[in-house]
Amino acid sequence: MKLKITTASILTIGDEILYGQITDTNSQWIGQELSVLGILLTTKLSVGDKFEEIIKGLDYCKKNSDFVIITGGLGPTKDDITKNVLCDYFKTGLKRNEIVLKHVKDFFEKRGKEFTLINQAQADVLENSQVLFNEMGTAPGMWIQDKNTIFVCMPGVPYEMKHIFSTKIIPKLKSEFDLLNIIHQFVMTIGIGESFLADLISEWENNLPKFIRLAYLPSPGIVKLRLSANGNDIELLKLELKKQISSLIPYIEKYIFSLQNITIEESIAKALVNNKLNISISESCTGGALSSAFTNIAGSSAYFMGSFVAYSNEIKQNIININKDTILKYGAVSEETVLEMAINTAKIFKTDLSLATSGIAGPDGGTIDKPVGTVWIACYFKGKTHTKKLTLTQNRELNIRLSVVYSLNLLKEVLFIEANQKLYYF
Amino acid sequence: MKLKITTASILTIGDEILYGQITDTNSQWIGQELSVLGILLTTKLSVGDKFEEIIKGLDYCKKNSDFVIITGGLGPTKDDITKNVLCDYFKTGLKRNEIVLKHVKDFFEKRGKEFTLINQAQADVLENSQVLFNEMGTAPGMWIQDKNTIFVCMPGVPYEMKHIFSTKIIPKLKSEFDLLNIIHQFVMTIGIGESFLADLISEWENNLPKFIRLAYLPSPGIVKLRLSANGNDIELLKLELKKQISSLIPYIEKYIFSLQNITIEESIAKALVNNKLNISISESCTGGALSSAFTNIAGSSAYFMGSFVAYSNEIKQNIININKDTILKYGAVSEETVLEMAINTAKIFKTDLSLATSGIAGPDGGTIDKPVGTVWIACYFKGKTHTKKLTLTQNRELNIRLSVVYSLNLLKEVLFIEANQKLYYF
Repeated sequence: MKLKITTASILTIGDEILYGQITDTNSQWIGQELSVLGILLTTKLSVGDKFEEIIKGLDYCKKNSDFVIITGGLGPTKDDITKNVLCDYFKTGLKRNEIVLKHVKDFFEKRGKEFTLINQAQADVLENSQVLFNEMGTAPGMWIQDKNTIFVCMPGVPYEMKHIFSTKIIPKLKSEFDLLNIIHQFVMTIGIGESFLADLISEWENNLPKFIRLAYLPSPGIVKLRLSANGNDIELLKLELKKQISSLIPYIEKYIFSLQNITIEESIAKALVNNKLNISISESCTGGALSSAFTNIAGSSAYFMGSFVAYSNEIKQNIININKDTILKYGAVSEETVLEMAINTAKIFKTDLSLATSGIAGPDGGTIDKPVGTVWIACYFKGKTHTKKLTLTQNRELNIRLSVVYSLNLLKEVLFIEANQKLYYF
Repeated sequence: MKLKITTASILTIGDEILYGQITDTNSQWIGQELSVLGILLTTKLSVGDKFEEIIKGLDYCKKNSDFVIITGGLGPTKDDITKNVLCDYFKTGLKRNEIVLKHVKDFFEKRGKEFTLINQAQADVLENSQVLFNEMGTAPGMWIQDKNTIFVCMPGVPYEMKHIFSTKIIPKLKSEFDLLNIIHQFVMTIGIGESFLADLISEWENNLPKFIRLAYLPSPGIVKLRLSANGNDIELLKLELKKQISSLIPYIEKYIFSLQNITIEESIAKALVNNKLNISISESCTGGALSSAFTNIAGSSAYFMGSFVAYSNEIKQNIININKDTILKYGAVSEETVLEMAINTAKIFKTDLSLATSGIAGPDGGTIDKPVGTVWIACYFKGKTHTKKLTLTQNRELNIRLSVVYSLNLLKEVLFIEANQKLYYF
């Protein structure tokens, strides 16, 4: 009868993570791998390179999970004390592993580096452990079973950790242990706040079966809904998720841009490619950020022709050919100006579509009738135009980000109205 | 007599972080802020949206620190249970805060959105708490003192958390509590890797007095050096730091862009304003990101005139007037093309300076003689031009970021050569 593993914890050891000197990308990656394996990560804990802190951390993680994943502090330098602490914790000692020793020796010789005593110590592993061989580096991983709890210990170097986890730990878990099934389904929404979304779907949410959990993951302008189902029968879970999604869609269809875990940029890219449409941009207050949203995506040169960042009226007039009177009469931040920007830009770039933004990002430049956060956006589609006025915040960075997201949302709406293209169709 | 705060812990609440759906950038940022305050972060703990896990986490953090920082799970939706758990933990209840209620109400009305019951609940705060007002969003922060432990609770949305921490928590800590005397001095470098920098300054570093700690904080293209001195006599510490900085500068002067904790963008902005110079940009592979680096800075419209994002050869030819033969003969990614881009752009925008980028960001589009990661950048300054070839990585996102940073570094060098302007002078 196989040992059941349903919960896991990650213990990250190292001062550099606590001091904020490096971003801990390891535990995010491990978290994703675990959720695919159907193991629920209950705890993520980071402690410094201190004996008693590590001991306390090990106890806490053991109490809260079946599977404790330890990373970091395995290096050869004296501030890496993980192995000694583990010896103390498990009341065991170190033994030198000859296969690892040869590997480390070769590793250094290949690189023409001296094989010092300190490096030899890398081949010392816990007596009660199985070695998780590290082809990518010198510090081996270790697998320790302590009654019904599994401990694995890996170096903190991301590509070494990922290598050991993928090629040694995942196969072992799958073959030798009893894992739960968990699957996720995403519904990506744009243009509606978390609380309004919650109101719209509360009836549906209240009727969700116990084995499906819903999470709201908000970011500026966007709310990601994640449904997580766990149980024994994968096919049944998939079926139930499918059923729940189709009953959810009618409540919020106009806000959905994808049923996959992708960005609005990626979703729009698919739609443009699928409809053989190309696009150009004139941006003022977004200052290049809207163009970046398109060009960040690989292959965007196929449909993104280019853009103007029009930060001065001269440029608006001389290059985008905005009528001088339009700006004089209505101002640079106006429906009239942003409309001309969109129309002329599409003409100049000879594109099917264009987007234009003009606004007051702040903190300065606001007036009584046009306060900071006032932004006009426009979208041109084959002769037709759509405009929208945004009333945003006092925060420049946020105003730029929101103007980008709402411009992409306007494009999403225009693609539906003018090309009958539902983004989440893909 | 003020309460002493020497250690802190961060408790992050939310399934999304455990499941690896979002990167936890909050706790890295908080870790940096704390070390600036002279508070040692001993623990970073993430738990899911589950009652008993949060309780256990609170106990653990309280045991391990004087100051417990809680983020996440404050949203209005059902999966956000932090407030209820805290009520139970502190044996207290919720009370509606009228000032917050009005703020939330205005927040929604300004956006022409309905003020629902769920939203009103955002104004409920713990009876035993002081409200940390959240101008950036609807969920307020809370400050709770429980005997000798301070708990603060903030929303997980990064810009809201950062706002509350910077404008409410840091001032309160500094004025009302006994913190270790620690002062920091930054030396911002660009264009040299961490290990090479370490080699250059090793002699200097080895002679640092015990009470000064040096931290290397690397990001793509940039290494931030932070010297932290702690002791009782602030004036003495300042004097000693000043002395150390002036002895450091000769080792690495050409790489320094500031002696303050600012970005290269901010440093360049100061130099442009000080020298009354304006600038325009033509960017291909950076696709708007270089323009954003300028326009992200408040007041940039004073010196940034605008830019072309030239993603197609047509645009390069018809709008930036690149000679057709130049592209045919040398290709879009070449010194000749990027040079013409810079010269013509400065002419079109009538600016003193211009920057141009053209390269293969990847993952596709590479050739044998021009592999992915090949980028040409150029800088024009009043008739003079400077170009540089970059050989970057296989990673598109990183290539774009590095192209931006190195373009700014080229501008930094040109300002020194042509205008004798040392950026770190300011």
